[in-house]
Amino acid sequence: MNKPKIVLAFSGGLDTTFCVLWLKKQLNADVITAVVDTGGFSKEELAAIAERSKALGAVKHHELDGKSEVFDRFAVPLIQGNILRGRVYPLSVAAERVLQAELVARVAKDEKADGVCHGSTGAGNDQVRFDAVFQVLLPGVKVHTPIRDLGWSRQQETDYLAKEGFSVPAKTTAYSVNAGLWGTTVGGGATHDPWSEIPDSVFPSASEKAPTESASVVVGFEKGVPVSLDGKKMDGVALVAELHKLGKKYAVGRGIHMGDTILGIKGRIGFEAPAPLMLIAAHNELEKLVLTRWQSFWKNQAGEFYGQMLHEGLYFDPVMRDIEAMIKSSQETVTGEARLRLRAGHFDVTGVKSPYSMVAGAATYGETTKLWTGDEAAGFSKLHALPMTLAARAKAGAK
Amino acid sequence: MNKPKIVLAFSGGLDTTFCVLWLKKQLNADVITAVVDTGGFSKEELAAIAERSKALGAVKHHELDGKSEVFDRFAVPLIQGNILRGRVYPLSVAAERVLQAELVARVAKDEKADGVCHGSTGAGNDQVRFDAVFQVLLPGVKVHTPIRDLGWSRQQETDYLAKEGFSVPAKTTAYSVNAGLWGTTVGGGATHDPWSEIPDSVFPSASEKAPTESASVVVGFEKGVPVSLDGKKMDGVALVAELHKLGKKYAVGRGIHMGDTILGIKGRIGFEAPAPLMLIAAHNELEKLVLTRWQSFWKNQAGEFYGQMLHEGLYFDPVMRDIEAMIKSSQETVTGEARLRLRAGHFDVTGVKSPYSMVAGAATYGETTKLWTGDEAAGFSKLHALPMTLAARAKAGAK
Amino acid sequence: MNKPKIVLAFSGGLDTTFCVLWLKKQLNADVITAVVDTGGFSKEELAAIAERSKALGAVKHHELDGKSEVFDRFAVPLIQGNILRGRVYPLSVAAERVLQAELVARVAKDEKADGVCHGSTGAGNDQVRFDAVFQVLLPGVKVHTPIRDLGWSRQQETDYLAKEGFSVPAKTTAYSVNAGLWGTTVGGGATHDPWSEIPDSVFPSASEKAPTESASVVVGFEKGVPVSLDGKKMDGVALVAELHKLGKKYAVGRGIHMGDTILGIKGRIGFEAPAPLMLIAAHNELEKLVLTRWQSFWKNQAGEFYGQMLHEGLYFDPVMRDIEAMIKSSQETVTGEARLRLRAGHFDVTGVKSPYSMVAGAATYGETTKLWTGDEAAGFSKLHALPMTLAARAKAGAK
Amino acid sequence: MNKPKIVLAFSGGLDTTFCVLWLKKQLNADVITAVVDTGGFSKEELAAIAERSKALGAVKHHELDGKSEVFDRFAVPLIQGNILRGRVYPLSVAAERVLQAELVARVAKDEKADGVCHGSTGAGNDQVRFDAVFQVLLPGVKVHTPIRDLGWSRQQETDYLAKEGFSVPAKTTAYSVNAGLWGTTVGGGATHDPWSEIPDSVFPSASEKAPTESASVVVGFEKGVPVSLDGKKMDGVALVAELHKLGKKYAVGRGIHMGDTILGIKGRIGFEAPAPLMLIAAHNELEKLVLTRWQSFWKNQAGEFYGQMLHEGLYFDPVMRDIEAMIKSSQETVTGEARLRLRAGHFDVTGVKSPYSMVAGAATYGETTKLWTGDEAAGFSKLHALPMTLAARAKAGAK
Repeated sequence: MNKPKIVLAFSGGLDTTFCVLWLKKQLNADVITAVVDTGGFSKEELAAIAERSKALGAVKHHELDGKSEVFDRFAVPLIQGNILRGRVYPLSVAAERVLQAELVARVAKDEKADGVCHGSTGAGNDQVRFDAVFQVLLPGVKVHTPIRDLGWSRQQETDYLAKEGFSVPAKTTAYSVNAGLWGTTVGGGATHDPWSEIPDSVFPSASEKAPTESASVVVGFEKGVPVSLDGKKMDGVALVAELHKLGKKYAVGRGIHMGDTILGIKGRIGFEAPAPLMLIAAHNELEKLVLTRWQSFWKNQAGEFYGQMLHEGLYFDPVMRDIEAMIKSSQETVTGEARLRLRAGHFDVTGVKSPYSMVAGAATYGETTKLWTGDEAAGFSKLHALPMTLAARAKAGAK
Repeated sequence: MNKPKIVLAFSGGLDTTFCVLWLKKQLNADVITAVVDTGGFSKEELAAIAERSKALGAVKHHELDGKSEVFDRFAVPLIQGNILRGRVYPLSVAAERVLQAELVARVAKDEKADGVCHGSTGAGNDQVRFDAVFQVLLPGVKVHTPIRDLGWSRQQETDYLAKEGFSVPAKTTAYSVNAGLWGTTVGGGATHDPWSEIPDSVFPSASEKAPTESASVVVGFEKGVPVSLDGKKMDGVALVAELHKLGKKYAVGRGIHMGDTILGIKGRIGFEAPAPLMLIAAHNELEKLVLTRWQSFWKNQAGEFYGQMLHEGLYFDPVMRDIEAMIKSSQETVTGEARLRLRAGHFDVTGVKSPYSMVAGAATYGETTKLWTGDEAAGFSKLHALPMTLAARAKAGAK
Repeated sequence: MNKPKIVLAFSGGLDTTFCVLWLKKQLNADVITAVVDTGGFSKEELAAIAERSKALGAVKHHELDGKSEVFDRFAVPLIQGNILRGRVYPLSVAAERVLQAELVARVAKDEKADGVCHGSTGAGNDQVRFDAVFQVLLPGVKVHTPIRDLGWSRQQETDYLAKEGFSVPAKTTAYSVNAGLWGTTVGGGATHDPWSEIPDSVFPSASEKAPTESASVVVGFEKGVPVSLDGKKMDGVALVAELHKLGKKYAVGRGIHMGDTILGIKGRIGFEAPAPLMLIAAHNELEKLVLTRWQSFWKNQAGEFYGQMLHEGLYFDPVMRDIEAMIKSSQETVTGEARLRLRAGHFDVTGVKSPYSMVAGAATYGETTKLWTGDEAAGFSKLHALPMTLAARAKAGAK
Repeated sequence: MNKPKIVLAFSGGLDTTFCVLWLKKQLNADVITAVVDTGGFSKEELAAIAERSKALGAVKHHELDGKSEVFDRFAVPLIQGNILRGRVYPLSVAAERVLQAELVARVAKDEKADGVCHGSTGAGNDQVRFDAVFQVLLPGVKVHTPIRDLGWSRQQETDYLAKEGFSVPAKTTAYSVNAGLWGTTVGGGATHDPWSEIPDSVFPSASEKAPTESASVVVGFEKGVPVSLDGKKMDGVALVAELHKLGKKYAVGRGIHMGDTILGIKGRIGFEAPAPLMLIAAHNELEKLVLTRWQSFWKNQAGEFYGQMLHEGLYFDPVMRDIEAMIKSSQETVTGEARLRLRAGHFDVTGVKSPYSMVAGAATYGETTKLWTGDEAAGFSKLHALPMTLAARAKAGAK
């Protein structure tokens, strides 16, 4: 029998290192590793991952750059929908994991692989995201999940690797960090107890000291997509990176997120995501200048659900395309600028402008307006309240 | 003919001062003034208002304390629903204006008044709120709105008063301030141009300098109602006042709100509302520990609408009672504590705990869990994604 | 001064006949009449309307065929959204009135008219629809509404016409009928009392006796648009007409609709709209074969709102385009056929099929399925119910 | 070791008959059978079930009457919410299955059982409903699911029974029927192919011939609960039975439902549910007389979701209590009467009345109204359309 060809989503960590050996030994497989860079790896780290793949005996290694796709296909709808999970968290991980699975699936297709493998445990969200994407994109391709199937402890895995002559650096911290274009999350340690305060030192930018002077930056949008900083056109990936840099300098964009995991329990993480939070706040304010109240209402109603589906790995449900279509339609006039002011630990959106501004010159709020007369306002006011007036009368009359 | 008896919502400002004289002169009315304190007046100010009423020749003056009702009937549902208009503004004015109108209507009923009067212009939101409440609560009672009907400028009103021997202090600032239990808003000046930054000096607490040391405060909740600070039981009004004091010390809770006015144009205000923002953030995080995902979802869906209706003065539409019933039901388990940490200009919710916590000891996220096996997770994962898988297959198959 | 040029939405009835004379006499206007055929006029009626316009001294008469646009721009989204107001009424009037106003506005633009006029009273919905469309499409053009402004009775109008030498046929029935492509509505008479039964004789097709044999018809859809009957391709207008004919033969599609008028009171009408009801039912069933559950959910959530906005004349709010974009996206796979069976007074959708059917051969409901194992189902089942299980435990534990 | 005590949800059919023997043999268990009557069994059938339990060697048999609880706790919210799944199906099975599971769980608690058992396969919805209810109500009690675990064919089960000396009557029809208070459903046969027409003969009432004369019945409601027929007070169970009888006489209330099963595939059933459909239609029309537009809107938004959760067995998620609270609040004024007219194969709601009717005498739609003037209507109309007007101008201006 031929050796099965299996493509593995590979990060070089303990779990996926174990997978390479396990697939080789147990299934006598030709293992092809694939790493997807969604903004979380340095050049050196990517080189080390490729190195390790080779050392482990993978027959081939793919390195895929997913940063632009994360921005265009995931960050853009999240910005346009002003989507924050639980009102605080920009879905940093979900946005990236789905794309990573998708790019690995592309490799599996190109390689005509017999199987595909991910190293997620049975406890968390990522297993579901990988499974879901593979199930949709790779019909008929066997999905291997040794980590979930075996349920070994990290020590057991480490021992197994040692016996095979491999080692992975022991964790030196109680926290596990996931970094990427759309933000950095930290789990473990104090995150496990909802009452515990997560120490500042956990966050990547912790060592920097915020300046005492405030700074401002102007984000330019075209149809709801951020396209410039302080008037300078930039592609999305560069723009996000630049905002992250500025945000970290001021230690903004940190937070704690507690929410429902896909499997139904509560989970809590810390995060640092200055660029997403600044972009969404800026976009949200710009929208208020150009959308009607009901446009905002429906975007918000559907946007929260969109975030939940993305979180749960259900990105390929066609309802996601339907909601994206609605959101995209609403962005027709979301062109203009928003100014952010950063101070130590926080930022504000201090001004917005747009060629599509609905703030009519003649209709300055709070002043005399030329758009209507007092009599017209009185007529409106009366009929505006008529339904509840009739309801109140009917109720009073029935008694 | 008898002199008509008219109850006037009276604040002692230019517009309502004008109303007293106008009602007396034009309608030969006995004017009864009523001022409702929803947290925005000092004792001295209330005394001055009563004084002025007398001086203007009102036949009677009522002073009504609305603070507890603002808290119980308006602030509580807004906290329980985590309701922020446009995601930022705690509806400070709307919450108070509706109650003010309601209490004035009670006076009109008690006094068996022939008419009721408010001094709102035809340009803003308040006319609609007063009209709506009076229309519902005072069927058959004539509503007088001389300011809206005449459409005079402030100068014309001032001249009229002068001729009658009265004066009002000229405005010394470009800004108009509305203060109350649920926050302070500022209009005018830089708020008119959406691109303008609103200067710090506009805010009431601007003169204070925030401490460099952080502070923390623990808010206790019972069924979604804040009932204690740092373990000390307090009634709602006192609790809000205490939090305002703390918040102002740290200059937190400021913001800009731009949104849709009831009459359909865009309006922009600055606000400073530390207590509402801290209470809503604390409540929102506590909820995450005890509500299921769908409870949060439906509260959010309906909560945004609730805020819009309140904003538009439609508080007495029975749908508001329906949504309150849903929200109240959801608060059954929202009992516990949330810790806030304040730093200069911002605050974070750093921990929550509850006897109803759904964070099962056995189900620590990200670790091995004893609530399910890897096989069960795999089964769930597969069926979780089945609908979108079938949709994808159907689409692929049809081509 | 030049004579003002005013375009009048003209139907030849009492109100708009009055308008022609009034505009001529009171405003010394050159009146241009415009009638829009949205399916409610016979050739003879259109000729009589043109005749009457001339007789009344209009300087010009426009006859516009709006049937295709009613179908393409109004009926199609209503079908695709399965939109029935109050769950029963296909919005027959609103769909047509908005387009009528729009086409009249186009005439006013082409004619560079100084003014535009509609003959609606101040009591009903149509005034708001005409006003709304004119306000959006004809900025700066004066809107004349003599019927609303004068508030005359029909007798007063008739007397006025008589003095000018014109007469209109007296109404011979207590009912007023509005017929068009998207259905016929009847108002007046028994409709005014919600307890009264509306007699069969009121409906246009009442005289026909339904056959005792059932009939069936197969409607073909392409991306949610009905395109064929029994396999025969037809354009939308013809298809609707054909279905109306069949439906009337079986006396299906009649009903009573009570709902909220735009001005806030309740209104009740009878209607006969066989084609809309059959098309929406057929489409709704076909969708169930091809959409995921969440696609249906969001279409339904937003669809009801879409109907309300259309009803209220707010067709040009950009949120309508946003919702249409969502609905359109969902129709990508709504291609196939639905079979209707008609019996006297009612019809059923008895079968649907589609190349995009999600009914997998291997997944026949209720039988053993090969898509999953019993163990996988058990795993899913457990985790599916986990959130409510944890909520129940937390509640029990806290006691 | 003691014999384990296991409570089995028992219907006397093949699957649950098998379960008794299996539990006894494989687990050496004391089996306690429990049958819950939710309206689907005759006295004779219940006696036969008890008989069979004894014959199979169960140590005890419980017969529980669930009819009142099905009405009060399941039918009432479904009526009050006007809830029809896929717009057609009254959730007949889900409403009853959840209660059956709950009552069996009560028996298990009372009996201090070591285990509980249901006979559902791994293919359908019922397994999830039983699992979910047991998981919530019976923490720590082992759930046995031999039918799902073994995955045997009906023939294998029959053979097993035969070897043990038992037989079950062979199915004589291609259809499986589930009857209960809230309607009868049929699966199997022609239901499997979405294009197939389901023959009339499948329905229980098929043999009756509908009268040619129409009949009418008046349903009385108190706060949204049906309490009388033609003025005669009746308890809910009797009222539903009476309406079923009348409805079957006219062969109304039949339909086909296709929808999403809990496990993610599409499923199709036929149903006959005259009472639910008549009650929901009657209630829906009565509501239109007494609710404001936004009350209806929110009930509809949440009602559809409520139905989905009930369908999926998630009845105990606290969000269900929250939505019930909202719906209940809305029913405060839903008191009055609705008249239904039945004709062969269909029915209509022909009139409604209520002491809380919002149809003001002074506000007859379509006539001159005394509630507002033409000028007030014009003022309202202008401001009603202002947001979309400003949006249109902003868009035009930006070009």
